[in-house]
Amino acid sequence: MISFASDYLCGAHPQVLKRLVETNMEVLGGYGSDLYCQSAAAKIQAACACPKAEIYFLTGGTQTNQLIISAMLKSYEGVIAAKTGHISVHEAGAIEYTGHKVLELEGELGKLKADDLEDYIKTFFADENHEHMVFPGMVYISFPTEYGTLYSKKELEALAAVCHRHAIPLYIDGARLGYGLCSYENDLSLPEMAALCDVFYIGGTKVGALCGEAVVFPQGNPPQHLRTQIKQHGALLAKGRLLGVQFDALFTNDLYWHISQHAIAMAEKLKKILMAKGYEFFLQSSTNQQFVILDHKTMERLSSQVEFSFWEELDEDRSVVRFATSWSTKEEDLKVLEKLL
Amino acid sequence: MISFASDYLCGAHPQVLKRLVETNMEVLGGYGSDLYCQSAAAKIQAACACPKAEIYFLTGGTQTNQLIISAMLKSYEGVIAAKTGHISVHEAGAIEYTGHKVLELEGELGKLKADDLEDYIKTFFADENHEHMVFPGMVYISFPTEYGTLYSKKELEALAAVCHRHAIPLYIDGARLGYGLCSYENDLSLPEMAALCDVFYIGGTKVGALCGEAVVFPQGNPPQHLRTQIKQHGALLAKGRLLGVQFDALFTNDLYWHISQHAIAMAEKLKKILMAKGYEFFLQSSTNQQFVILDHKTMERLSSQVEFSFWEELDEDRSVVRFATSWSTKEEDLKVLEKLL
Amino acid sequence: MISFASDYLCGAHPQVLKRLVETNMEVLGGYGSDLYCQSAAAKIQAACACPKAEIYFLTGGTQTNQLIISAMLKSYEGVIAAKTGHISVHEAGAIEYTGHKVLELEGELGKLKADDLEDYIKTFFADENHEHMVFPGMVYISFPTEYGTLYSKKELEALAAVCHRHAIPLYIDGARLGYGLCSYENDLSLPEMAALCDVFYIGGTKVGALCGEAVVFPQGNPPQHLRTQIKQHGALLAKGRLLGVQFDALFTNDLYWHISQHAIAMAEKLKKILMAKGYEFFLQSSTNQQFVILDHKTMERLSSQVEFSFWEELDEDRSVVRFATSWSTKEEDLKVLEKLL
Amino acid sequence: MISFASDYLCGAHPQVLKRLVETNMEVLGGYGSDLYCQSAAAKIQAACACPKAEIYFLTGGTQTNQLIISAMLKSYEGVIAAKTGHISVHEAGAIEYTGHKVLELEGELGKLKADDLEDYIKTFFADENHEHMVFPGMVYISFPTEYGTLYSKKELEALAAVCHRHAIPLYIDGARLGYGLCSYENDLSLPEMAALCDVFYIGGTKVGALCGEAVVFPQGNPPQHLRTQIKQHGALLAKGRLLGVQFDALFTNDLYWHISQHAIAMAEKLKKILMAKGYEFFLQSSTNQQFVILDHKTMERLSSQVEFSFWEELDEDRSVVRFATSWSTKEEDLKVLEKLL
Repeated sequence: MISFASDYLCGAHPQVLKRLVETNMEVLGGYGSDLYCQSAAAKIQAACACPKAEIYFLTGGTQTNQLIISAMLKSYEGVIAAKTGHISVHEAGAIEYTGHKVLELEGELGKLKADDLEDYIKTFFADENHEHMVFPGMVYISFPTEYGTLYSKKELEALAAVCHRHAIPLYIDGARLGYGLCSYENDLSLPEMAALCDVFYIGGTKVGALCGEAVVFPQGNPPQHLRTQIKQHGALLAKGRLLGVQFDALFTNDLYWHISQHAIAMAEKLKKILMAKGYEFFLQSSTNQQFVILDHKTMERLSSQVEFSFWEELDEDRSVVRFATSWSTKEEDLKVLEKLL
Repeated sequence: MISFASDYLCGAHPQVLKRLVETNMEVLGGYGSDLYCQSAAAKIQAACACPKAEIYFLTGGTQTNQLIISAMLKSYEGVIAAKTGHISVHEAGAIEYTGHKVLELEGELGKLKADDLEDYIKTFFADENHEHMVFPGMVYISFPTEYGTLYSKKELEALAAVCHRHAIPLYIDGARLGYGLCSYENDLSLPEMAALCDVFYIGGTKVGALCGEAVVFPQGNPPQHLRTQIKQHGALLAKGRLLGVQFDALFTNDLYWHISQHAIAMAEKLKKILMAKGYEFFLQSSTNQQFVILDHKTMERLSSQVEFSFWEELDEDRSVVRFATSWSTKEEDLKVLEKLL
Repeated sequence: MISFASDYLCGAHPQVLKRLVETNMEVLGGYGSDLYCQSAAAKIQAACACPKAEIYFLTGGTQTNQLIISAMLKSYEGVIAAKTGHISVHEAGAIEYTGHKVLELEGELGKLKADDLEDYIKTFFADENHEHMVFPGMVYISFPTEYGTLYSKKELEALAAVCHRHAIPLYIDGARLGYGLCSYENDLSLPEMAALCDVFYIGGTKVGALCGEAVVFPQGNPPQHLRTQIKQHGALLAKGRLLGVQFDALFTNDLYWHISQHAIAMAEKLKKILMAKGYEFFLQSSTNQQFVILDHKTMERLSSQVEFSFWEELDEDRSVVRFATSWSTKEEDLKVLEKLL
Repeated sequence: MISFASDYLCGAHPQVLKRLVETNMEVLGGYGSDLYCQSAAAKIQAACACPKAEIYFLTGGTQTNQLIISAMLKSYEGVIAAKTGHISVHEAGAIEYTGHKVLELEGELGKLKADDLEDYIKTFFADENHEHMVFPGMVYISFPTEYGTLYSKKELEALAAVCHRHAIPLYIDGARLGYGLCSYENDLSLPEMAALCDVFYIGGTKVGALCGEAVVFPQGNPPQHLRTQIKQHGALLAKGRLLGVQFDALFTNDLYWHISQHAIAMAEKLKKILMAKGYEFFLQSSTNQQFVILDHKTMERLSSQVEFSFWEELDEDRSVVRFATSWSTKEEDLKVLEKLL
């Protein structure tokens, strides 16, 4: 059976795995002190055009969100996010577990709007009772969003301006960062994004690694004793090399971008096939996630031969499903799919 | 330079890595639902002679301790541990971060004594003010301990009896479990250990894996919705296969035991070499960690040619250092060391 | 200046204070073990017609909500509340501080609707990904709500039925319980309410006490070792008598009901005065809180001679303000107000 | 029956209660904004000779310790305390509940020693692995200690010097502060103490109030948005006047000192009586708590006619018990006791 269920269903990109094999018997320091972590960090600094950036490697997305958000918030602060944000819905309350509220704004197709954000913050500080409320202490967005949508450069600049005006850090969840930056509609470069936010992470798990996310503090100002906080969260790998070697491989010879471009090319072909067959899209996405409306008969028929993800029920007869491509999506799979549709 | 600094300085055992390569392109379910996680669990059930056991795979030791302890304690309970226990000292307060106190008992060479435990629990419940104190809700021990020492079968039975009498679960941190069970002095089998405790974990990171620990609930009674709690802790890997494939390999053809036996054989040779050269041991350990007393001149001389870990200062002139062996320790390294000593 | 700003601006009802004075020199046990706590509990059991009820006394509303909700939720659960609920907005994130998410439903004029609740819970459990989400573990409502509205008996029965069907406890925040139960529109008795929920509290701070709330577990099934949890939260008063004596006074000779009836009678007069003067109400409330729309000129004019609370801006020219009555509201104050309006 | 069981067994000092009665019907702002809170703060500033001091009023000791310690620690820090400290033993894990470890030092008769503290901190930072450990972020001492002992001026200066050298705040739990400062052996004034520490609290609950502790930041540097943090902990009283009026009374006409002096005078008489009768003291205390060794027969005989607290078992035949005096101890009670002994 072919699968478009998600972008984390195969192992690592062969080149990443190859480097794990090649370096396997080297004796290296533990806990992220090894030379591959250093080398990967240097390559990421270069890719971001942030020579002062500090980089930390973590294992997965929820872990990263939990750690970064709780390490940067003061105890009486919460994090603003879209109602559909991953931290709002699909992380089992990982943020609240650390004592902080997710302050949910409505958003639009997964995106926060700068005006809404400005309004929220202004209204908060204007409220006589705001001492009895959770202070907004960070803004969380995802790029691409959970709906595969993207912030334009202009939109991100507007959000960043609001954050800057109120001295509230802006954090970008880049679980699928490569698939966003390589989208044909994207007008942001990695250095531009790095310059607009206070912290973000470059997703590895969904973009060719076995596991791993690279947290980037573009201006080199991480929270104090962050390594200790990582340990305190149970998130410090003894064999930090596992992450260092993978990110070193991903940022060697533009592998991260090749992987991402491939997934986007496959997604574009997928879109064409679906459109040609008359399928209706739930929303326009230019990234590796495509949201399609299926009537329940079609859904049932297809699901015996191709894997995709159920997203939400639209009405009695139809549901939204997601098709995702990745570095491992093959042309042949698309051809098989085309015949099935 | 040769290294005896720790048991996590090389990558994975080649056989483990080989299986990651072989399975890399298989399309597998996420979050631990894949067939390798299932197969590994079945093999671990068999190795523990616990057909009902439930097994969960996590990434590292501190993460495992934090998750299991917080998931099993009630909010007003703490966990009893030796003062030298890993959770007491070297996990950056990961247990307290989840809201629970580590109730530290003195212990002896890293081991809790059954009588002290009985005393502590009895005194607690006899205290008129115990409603104002932290209830003992779990007992944590490590096997082997942080000092490379082992509980004998009799000692473990005595501890388990105290726990059982007071209905307090017994948890065994097996970060180096293989090295304990394969020690020449050990008189416990894995099934016997599994039968005596309520939950334990089989360490992978230090015994041949790139990362990973297998938590075993021998009687199949995990805390409710543990998978959600794993997610909430940021500890659920999207590519759960990374852990499943590795543990499946470790428990195929007794690889876990071969690895462990090799490390122990190397440790025994190391001991003989050190003894022959007249070095003094800080304590007797029959596992892969050897604690040796070095005067500071010798320490300085050696440290330019061989890596070992500083443990603690003994007096003005001498310190305790640790030499560790592992699956990757080579006979040649021992020969080089012998000449240097 | 006369004040309708809130219902906690005077001290205690004179009869409550009198009892504090009369019992002051008695030597009594600490931490809630005194005979006044026992006597108050017995009187509350009788008032609720719940002979098995267990009663605990706490100091304030946020403390009570935080303690009860965190003590009853499992670590992976959150509490469902209206978006306008006190715990959602005005407790500075006290619930999240204990690690739990407030799952906010839209609600209507401060009230949760049974159908919405049923929908939410059903949708949650039907979601394939619910293992990655926060489980609903409790339902929080306030009676009266933050908008002074009330659940009818039928509405409360419907909510309770949903909770019961899904085995999710129903918790009622009764910070102003007396003012709700004594409203002319209310059709619920205290015993009926007690029978419909799993836990609730009888507000003292806003209904005649200096401080204090009485938590009632109608069926006598409090969370285990709740007293220890109260201590752990820093919420256990050494001189528990302060709460016991006050609640004993409040539930002697129906004082709690007299206080509440007085406030409601004053509120009804206030309503009539406002209506007669042509003021517009933001919503219909039959309790001690009245929400009135004022244009900004009137607001400014009045605010120099009478205290009321700003609630929210309605549009550029008008705002919603709150007038509250209490046990201490005097007829004279209403007369003065009438002239000012 | 006469009682020396504790110092919180009567209500409030009559003068304190009188002021509550006199101010009862005044309409005052909520949440600590009232004029009595302001007036009390000004009087405390004067008593401490700290014109810049910021003062916050809380309800009880454990609440105060929990709030102040968690508000001042960074997330990766713990608080150093004597093993016998109230926060170490008798607060049901309230500190750990907020995510922080209590780093327990041995101490001597309840007191931390400056040399031990210096050693601990130096050893910590010298440890190569300290990134994996809980950072010391505050020092907690109690004055008087849980054993009724006192730090001399010289001892406190030495402790403060260590804290200062390492930039670690010093916090003094003054639950029984008056009884310490009024002890005949004390050589510290309140202004001297205030000058030596970063934050402390003046206990009210045990020194004449119904409830209440006054937290003092001598240099006027409270943690950011502390009022919001108080609310978040469920510790913000709506009727903050309850605390303001009481502390205003306590610091009017030296009432706090008269209360304390009386208790000390009674304690000195008690000591003389006990000594004259040949009773053995467990330790020398110059404060209102006296620790006496009783054989079990005497203990049983006495306990039917006088209340005292069991402290700990000394050996099979004897136990340590505590006699406490307070503002409410009467000469007659001592005479009755003398006859019983």
